[in-house]
Amino acid sequence: MRTFKIKKAFTLIESGPVVLVTSNDGKKDNVMTISWTMVMDFTPLFAITTGPWNYSFAAIQRTKECVIAIPTIDMINDVVGIGTCSGADTDKFEKFALTPARGKYVAAPLIKECLANIECKVTDIIKKHNIVVLEGMAAYFDNDRKEKRTVHAVGDGTFIVDGRRINRKKMMQSKLPAGL
Amino acid sequence: MRTFKIKKAFTLIESGPVVLVTSNDGKKDNVMTISWTMVMDFTPLFAITTGPWNYSFAAIQRTKECVIAIPTIDMINDVVGIGTCSGADTDKFEKFALTPARGKYVAAPLIKECLANIECKVTDIIKKHNIVVLEGMAAYFDNDRKEKRTVHAVGDGTFIVDGRRINRKKMMQSKLPAGL
Repeated sequence: MRTFKIKKAFTLIESGPVVLVTSNDGKKDNVMTISWTMVMDFTPLFAITTGPWNYSFAAIQRTKECVIAIPTIDMINDVVGIGTCSGADTDKFEKFALTPARGKYVAAPLIKECLANIECKVTDIIKKHNIVVLEGMAAYFDNDRKEKRTVHAVGDGTFIVDGRRINRKKMMQSKLPAGL
Repeated sequence: MRTFKIKKAFTLIESGPVVLVTSNDGKKDNVMTISWTMVMDFTPLFAITTGPWNYSFAAIQRTKECVIAIPTIDMINDVVGIGTCSGADTDKFEKFALTPARGKYVAAPLIKECLANIECKVTDIIKKHNIVVLEGMAAYFDNDRKEKRTVHAVGDGTFIVDGRRINRKKMMQSKLPAGL
């Protein structure tokens, strides 16, 4: 997993893939599945909607850290499994045979099996709306991985797999951040 | 375009399609392309990140209304075109031959050419983060339309088209809202 330019990290999230969000409460690693995410800035800033109903929320709120890990289609059953059990009574890294890797900025683990990982600091929690604002500190991308298609949760129990990619870079030139 | 259950409207957004957001400032219709969106609740509540840099923002802020319209892959050049010119000097409905249709709750127009439309009221603007919180009032879906594949902006000028859909409803049963 190689370093990925932090100023390009928003491109890992913008298309709306379902992500895994890891945390570490000082004792153990945990992970949850999240599809309610949004890019907020190129800096990069991200929003996720979560709250006390997610066991991970307490650790993220206290440590002000997490990792956004981006899984691919071959991991779909783990992604759904992680989203339907709780860290309150399950060691999810063990149950789903995830390999934690340490980053540079946060104690929350990267997930070695994922296509990409973004170390994040919590910069704000908008309690009224259950929005956690995250700043990406460092990003990593596994370019050697064959399967690179991410998965998009529809929300009704179905998922859309990435299809073909089309290029409109020329048309969009005036709107793209420099050096992308 | 038939009515779509409002409690299912979050499924139109959750997978992260690029959307068109329409507004009406009391004089004319306008539309912008947005890919920074997030589902926030099943009620449904949505967030979009926008601000004064988008010409539409003033109208949305003042009228507290907009429509989220969901285009498909056959509209990609219009989607990019809409995102790279401004309502300040362009009548985008005319330029892109969009047909406005009137909804029940807001003055902002539905877009007849889109796969789906959601009439939205602004319930909050989080100025510190440029987040506009929207509540879906009514939703519509064009089931007769052949092309139903949406498009996901990567953010670097490339786009991912919807690929195949996979079903994990059984595995996710415990997490799905009732009656979905």
